[in-house]
Amino acid sequence: MKILIVGGGGMIGQKLLARLAVDGRLGDREIAEVTLFDVVPATHPVTPFTVNVLTGDVADAATVTGLISAQPDVIFHLAAIVSGEAEADFDKGYRINLDGTRLLFDAARVIPDYVPRVVFTSSIAVFGAPFPESIGDEFHNTPLTSYGTQKTIGELLLSDFTRRGMLDGISIRLPTICVRPGAPNKAASGFFSNIIREPLAGYEAVLPVTEDVRHWHASPRAAVEFLLHAATIAGQQIGARRSLTLPGISVTVGEQIESLRRVAGDKVVARIRHEPDAAIIKMVAGWPQQFDADRASHLGFRAEHSFDEIIRVHLEDELNGVIK
Amino acid sequence: MKILIVGGGGMIGQKLLARLAVDGRLGDREIAEVTLFDVVPATHPVTPFTVNVLTGDVADAATVTGLISAQPDVIFHLAAIVSGEAEADFDKGYRINLDGTRLLFDAARVIPDYVPRVVFTSSIAVFGAPFPESIGDEFHNTPLTSYGTQKTIGELLLSDFTRRGMLDGISIRLPTICVRPGAPNKAASGFFSNIIREPLAGYEAVLPVTEDVRHWHASPRAAVEFLLHAATIAGQQIGARRSLTLPGISVTVGEQIESLRRVAGDKVVARIRHEPDAAIIKMVAGWPQQFDADRASHLGFRAEHSFDEIIRVHLEDELNGVIK
Repeated sequence: MKILIVGGGGMIGQKLLARLAVDGRLGDREIAEVTLFDVVPATHPVTPFTVNVLTGDVADAATVTGLISAQPDVIFHLAAIVSGEAEADFDKGYRINLDGTRLLFDAARVIPDYVPRVVFTSSIAVFGAPFPESIGDEFHNTPLTSYGTQKTIGELLLSDFTRRGMLDGISIRLPTICVRPGAPNKAASGFFSNIIREPLAGYEAVLPVTEDVRHWHASPRAAVEFLLHAATIAGQQIGARRSLTLPGISVTVGEQIESLRRVAGDKVVARIRHEPDAAIIKMVAGWPQQFDADRASHLGFRAEHSFDEIIRVHLEDELNGVIK
Repeated sequence: MKILIVGGGGMIGQKLLARLAVDGRLGDREIAEVTLFDVVPATHPVTPFTVNVLTGDVADAATVTGLISAQPDVIFHLAAIVSGEAEADFDKGYRINLDGTRLLFDAARVIPDYVPRVVFTSSIAVFGAPFPESIGDEFHNTPLTSYGTQKTIGELLLSDFTRRGMLDGISIRLPTICVRPGAPNKAASGFFSNIIREPLAGYEAVLPVTEDVRHWHASPRAAVEFLLHAATIAGQQIGARRSLTLPGISVTVGEQIESLRRVAGDKVVARIRHEPDAAIIKMVAGWPQQFDADRASHLGFRAEHSFDEIIRVHLEDELNGVIK
């Protein structure tokens, strides 16, 4: 089978590729070829299948038509301008997140007898305050960011195209991915990872909110499992509602810090510097805190069971178990 | 003040204009000029203000930029490819309902210091089955038609543009408008009006569903009141959630027919021919039946109190009280 990863150079795309390289297959089908598409050339490990590395603009119609003309069996659409940047640059956010997504779906729909599985990474940013204590599967999408608006529109297009038999799509609303490895990106939610990753690596981290802030997390490893499951689950099992809120862990920042203390001790926790930032506090107050991800759980999507586990996954996958 | 009615040649646009012509003002401001834009030249009555009649394609960027460059204070965006046609012609529906709407909003946003009130007529087609018995203000949008998808996307764009201070928008989800005067249009919901309008006018009408089908209605007169209220209500009163499900009357087709019997007698009711159509029955099964339109009610939007009243409005406004 042929797989296309749009946004293949990003953190999740790279972790997905590494996993596919180990497995050599997706579900019960052997992988012949994976194409990584991104704005900059993606790197890749040694793989048992062919890897094509392509660069280009996902909002350029000719580029996207070319990409899809290879008729990949599965398309992972992970490319996005993240929340902070989509808010700062209105045109860029709409161009990549809305136009790019629509071009991808359109390029697939116009090819006769071609109905690929499309896995679209949406976000809990499709929800906006005020919220119930726990957000159920039937709560409305009232995004309070341009990024959340663009992701919601992507979900809607995917659902309609799927209903009409043009795609076989599934939108998965990822929890905030924590602990995010590597350098901070422009996502406004970065501090949730920073306060774990940096202290574990021996560095100071700034916590710009109070410890009672509650949020919804899953690890990068869980994110890859979500993608694999979304790529292989039977369409009729999902049903008509193609957007799923995925399971995660709801913890306060204080609970995150206590987990870090249990896993890594007081010395590491002492590297967190409390510097409340009124602007960030205000923004985060509009973010969701907890979900009842019943549908996705019933469909077999699994996240971690505790934040301690999320930290241990980071230690195993990124730090070879070594705490500085 | 200057008003632009996009879709000014349609049934609702014409009724809105007639009402503005009588009032001469919108809220507490005198009307200087109304521009009617549509694909075909709109007609208009004698008015105490200037009326411009323009024709063109709402999905053509230059046309829309020209339209908005006049900087109307209020824009009523009523233009749409209706449900049946948007389902039959995928490209046309997306072109007019999505691209046209986005072009309109974009044309306004790029003009510095210009933040018009935009009233966008959305639809209860933004909801899709399965439903709770009565649909509340926080139920999610899972449209089961391309039309409903396009209307939901329009709502999302309007909300985001409004949040960012580019527009001052409000999306109103109209109930099914009943009794719709004139010739049937391509909306799949046409029979709800046909079975009242045609018998009252002395003609036979076909009822393609069973009498237990329940649906959500408001009169054309109520629709005009909705538009006027949406154009004049203070933005801060609406709050961040700019999409409102409007009040209506929930009745079964059987109750519609009993209303008709009370208002017009057995002879008129006998003109309804029962011809169940499996395809229409299946489609209608996915439509919403009843709403709790609490937010809109609190904000002062008012519909009729009974279906009898809806029929009497039709008799008064369209038939001079004369039953054939």
